[in-house]
Order: sequence, then C-alpha cells, then structure tokens
Amino acid sequence: MIAPLANDLLLRALLREPTSRRPIWVMRQAGRYLPEYRATRARAGSFLKLCTTPELACEVTLQPIERYALDAAILFSDILTIPHAMNLGLKFETGEGPTFARPVRSAADIDRLSVPDPHRELRYVIDAVSMVRRELRGRLPLIGFAGSPWTVGTYMVEGGGSKTFGRIKRMMYEAPGELHRLLDILTRSTIAYLNAQIAAGAQAVMIFDTWGGILTPAQYEEFSLRYMARIVEALTREAQGRRVPNIVFTKGGGAWLSKIAAIGCDAAGVDWNTDLATARTAVADKIALQGNLDPAALFAPPEVLRAQVRRVLDSYGPGPGHVFNLGHGITPDVNPEQLNVLIEAVHAYPVG
Amino acid sequence: MIAPLANDLLLRALLREPTSRRPIWVMRQAGRYLPEYRATRARAGSFLKLCTTPELACEVTLQPIERYALDAAILFSDILTIPHAMNLGLKFETGEGPTFARPVRSAADIDRLSVPDPHRELRYVIDAVSMVRRELRGRLPLIGFAGSPWTVGTYMVEGGGSKTFGRIKRMMYEAPGELHRLLDILTRSTIAYLNAQIAAGAQAVMIFDTWGGILTPAQYEEFSLRYMARIVEALTREAQGRRVPNIVFTKGGGAWLSKIAAIGCDAAGVDWNTDLATARTAVADKIALQGNLDPAALFAPPEVLRAQVRRVLDSYGPGPGHVFNLGHGITPDVNPEQLNVLIEAVHAYPVG
Repeated sequence: MIAPLANDLLLRALLREPTSRRPIWVMRQAGRYLPEYRATRARAGSFLKLCTTPELACEVTLQPIERYALDAAILFSDILTIPHAMNLGLKFETGEGPTFARPVRSAADIDRLSVPDPHRELRYVIDAVSMVRRELRGRLPLIGFAGSPWTVGTYMVEGGGSKTFGRIKRMMYEAPGELHRLLDILTRSTIAYLNAQIAAGAQAVMIFDTWGGILTPAQYEEFSLRYMARIVEALTREAQGRRVPNIVFTKGGGAWLSKIAAIGCDAAGVDWNTDLATARTAVADKIALQGNLDPAALFAPPEVLRAQVRRVLDSYGPGPGHVFNLGHGITPDVNPEQLNVLIEAVHAYPVG
Repeated sequence: MIAPLANDLLLRALLREPTSRRPIWVMRQAGRYLPEYRATRARAGSFLKLCTTPELACEVTLQPIERYALDAAILFSDILTIPHAMNLGLKFETGEGPTFARPVRSAADIDRLSVPDPHRELRYVIDAVSMVRRELRGRLPLIGFAGSPWTVGTYMVEGGGSKTFGRIKRMMYEAPGELHRLLDILTRSTIAYLNAQIAAGAQAVMIFDTWGGILTPAQYEEFSLRYMARIVEALTREAQGRRVPNIVFTKGGGAWLSKIAAIGCDAAGVDWNTDLATARTAVADKIALQGNLDPAALFAPPEVLRAQVRRVLDSYGPGPGHVFNLGHGITPDVNPEQLNVLIEAVHAYPVG
C-alpha cells in the first residue's frame, strides 16, 4: 500500500521539471538547533544510539517537518554509518566530533575491510527509512544519503576529523594504490547502502562530499569524483514507478561543477562560495542545482534574512531546476523561529 | 650603504619580467619543521617572545636561507601583530592557536581601537626588518607581510581561531556598519604598517587573506577585497630606486582571481585547489601568480614529489610571471630534506 505523494516539488525540481514554486529543505534540518531534537537526543543517551535506533531516528527525522512547511524530509543518520558497520570502533566524543578506535592506516587494515550488508550491519538505517516512509504517508518525499567514498575515507584514515588531512594525503602520495583499494570498497559499500535505502523507500538520494574541496583539481577527479560517478551510475533509477533523483554535493567544489554535471547525476549541491548564476552557467542547465544561502544569514534580522533569500533565488534566475537550501548545514546556535522567516521568504517568491 | 641585490629573480618575476629560471620561496619557510627553528623557539620561551624580539625574529628569518637555495627571505612574524599592538591581550596557547583576552564584539570595543604607530607599538617588527636587511647584505630580497583586514578582523571578533566564524558573520549581518568601521581601522593600520616595513627595507610585501574564502562572492568583495584594494593603492610603490611588488593571497579565493587582478596588485597567491593554467587564464596575464604545490606533496617519495613540482611548473606554462611556492604554509611534520628535493626540481626546470 503506497500512499500517493502529495508534495512532489522536490522530485520535480531535481529532475528540472516545472514546479509551482521553488521547493526548500535545509541541510541538518533535524538537528541540534531544535529543542525537540535535543530532548530526544538526551533521551537516547548518545548520538550513536540516536542514529542506530530506528524509532528514535524516525522521530527526529519527522520533527522539522512537523514544525515547518518544508518540502522534504531527510533521513536522520550520519555519514559514518558505513565505517561503523565495518567495525572500526566509532565514537562521538562531546565537542570532539567522531573518532575511530581502529583507524585504517596500512594495507593490512584495508585487507580486513569488507562491504557491509545493508540488511544486516546497517539494518537500523534501512528500518528507519521504512518507518519514516510509513509515518510520512505520502505527505512529503524522503531523502536518503551517504558520505562520498573520499570523505568517509578521510575519517577512516585520519581516525576522526582533521585540519590538515596529513595522513590520508600521505597515503595518496606514498601508496595511491592502497587508497584506491580503500575507496573501491567504500564505493561498493555505498552503492549497496543507497540502493537498499531506495528499496526501503528513499525517494531521492544525496551524496555528501564534505572534504572533496581539500584536493587539487586532478586529485579531486581521481580520488573523489570518479568514485561518485561509479555510485551515480549504479544507483537504482526508478522505484515505485518514479525516478529517484540523486544529488552530488562537494563542499568547496564550486569550480568543479561542470565536471560534476558530466558524471550523470541529476543535481549538484552548491555551497555559498559560488553564486548560483555562475553555477548555472557552469552546468549549462544540464542538471538541477541545490543551495546555497550562507548558513550564517540565519543570524540576520528578519528583513536582512529575507533580502538574502531573495538574492539567492534571483541569482538562480527563471526556469526550473532549483531546490532552495543552505550552502551547508544549519548550525546549532540558530533561533528556530528564523527558519520560518526563511521558508516564508522562499514560498513568497514568484515563479519565474 | 645599500648592497646591490645579487638575486632579484623574485622581484623580476613578481613584475612579470623575464628571469633565467623560476624563483622559489616557501610559505612558513622559517618554521617548526626546522630543528634550528625549534631550538630558537625553545630559547625564546614563547612564540610571542620570538615574534617580538628583533634579534630572535631575525635569526629565525635567516635560518631557511642558510640551509636552502631559496630566492627570498620572508620576515618571521605573525599576522596578529596589529591587534597585539591594539592591546587586545594576544596569547598563543600550545596546541590551541591564538586567543585574545579582550575580543572585539561591540561598537564600544571598536571605539576603543586606534591605529598603532608602527614605530612605537610595532617597533619590534620594523627593527627586525632593518636587522634582516643588514644581515642579508643584498644576497636575497626580503618579503614583508601583513594579514588582510578581514582575516585579522575574524580573529579579533571571534577571540581566536574559529570553525564556523559565527560571531563575525553575525556582526556582518546584524551590524555591517560596525564591521566596516573595524575593517577601516585595520586597513589604515595595515597601510602604515606595511609602508613602515618597506621604509625599513622590505623589498616586496604580501597580504595574507587566510579567511576570505569563507565568504560569499558578494561578501568577499565588500568585506575583504575592497579593503585589500585600499591597501594596495596606498602602498609605497618604490624604495631605494626599485619597484616594491605586492602579492595578494586569498586562500580559497581561486574563483575570484580575476577580481583580485583588477585591484591593481602585482601578483596573486594561488592555493592548490586551482590549477595555475586556470588561474592564469582568469588573470589574463595582467598580474604574476605565486603558488601552488599541495603542501602535502612534501610527504611524497622524492620521485613523486619531483613529478608534482613539474606538474605545477607545466601548468603555469611558458613566459614570465610565476613564483613557485606551496599553495599554503609548510607543515611542521615535513622532513626538512624534502625541501631540497623540491628546490632542486624547480631549479632543474627549463625556462619556457
């Protein structure tokens, strides 16, 4: 029993079909800026528990769409579920970000890795997807996601977050073949993972390449984009009679949008460093664009925020193919009321 | 008594004059990767003491040019000397980076700031410049430097380093007039500071805009580039009968190189995210370019490092106007021997 989709603005915009207005969702919309999220998070006891308990992940996924007139839900999860399933000892220390007890630093470490079965080690994610779809009852589409192989790999090799990425860069220069082996395993894992999310009900999927922007143009093509291209190519194209659009987002990759458009994805995320007008020229209207308000604009007084929103909408220009979003995740210190100002400003914008 | 300059490759390349080979220097060449630096630093007792004692700053400035066949010395100092002179309580905590005891967060905080006299509060820098020039005896040119007003301002407002730059961005959206007032004071301070460095003997100057890349294109023009343009315009153009070239370096600003070229600077620094071929097209050979090897390439085996160096040199192409450098500062964990491999590879490259 599949409920028909009442609001398909997101799916249409991602496929560059005309829409009555621009759809909007917000990266990290289910997150710490919401008091109800913090309450559930406290109840869960830990961030990892929140991610790995389908009922809680589902609850948190739905919180922002209960509160705001958003056009999509995005699964509450983390880009490090795959290495977690690879048994690397993932922990989220308060204020420290993620750390791995068993980072991947040698050929032997890579030998030990295998592709997780989404229905076993990542079952909690797939269950959360099914549960959210059920709860949504066709109100809004659900976006599934994964980290890019390069980005997930940086955490696995560095053992957590990094400022200089010295370890993975050293591996890249000293033993590029090993790094490719790691990225290949991550690519196969991500394909199985995203396709399982789609089979369970994800109606669009997004690949977050948070750290592609630390690479040179040649390294980006070799170590990040190439693997995202393999994923995009292997994604299930249709589910329940409908195209499942995909979005590729390389933070700091504004200069590489024409290359991203060439891998066959449906849409690219754009951070706030690149004007949407420039981005649109770069992709030559071959794909849709998603973005790109400076997340800090949510600190602005309402009238300034509205002007900034219009500026982003104007920058894209007329015609289909734009999904409004921030250029990066919403930060925990944002006043939740500001998101209403933002959403209303997007809704009020006339269709071009 | 001014010794004639024996090696003027850097000055010629920055002015796009032909040179017998490409000049090279390395950002942070006087730094922690050198055992002799660590010894002087230990003797000084603190990083700030090292910066503020002309004899020690001079000693450290000269260390890399004693060891390597570099084509320039760059003054050992810090981009936060100006706010230090403004009495904001600068400290460098081990592993923490810089912090200010009295950050700038209100109109009243800005009211209290005044332009430091380079010959009084910043006397230690000017003395270090004179001392280095004397010690160099015309062997190599000396580069002076300052942080960009925007970049220095971020530290003053955030109270130290930041990941999200929430405080200064909030000021930008809530009270842009106040932020402009702060940037104006910093601009006037920087002009006086750099011109005093030039008067004391700096033969080229560089403006480090480390955090310009966190801005939107419009914000970059309004809050960073505009002030660097004012500085460039007010810089002393000639000293001791010779042009004093200037270099503007916005990290993460690869997409804005044509705008940077338009402010009238002599050269732009380029980080490793942008190919020099792309950068050169963007600036249309109006200015020189400096960069842009990935600093992590210094972790590569020598033959890989040499290939990466050639790739950068090839990417610029034939003709004058290229100063070889890293795309960002050399990191403390680099093996000092690798810098010889790098320099020899640059020297071995045939002139195009």
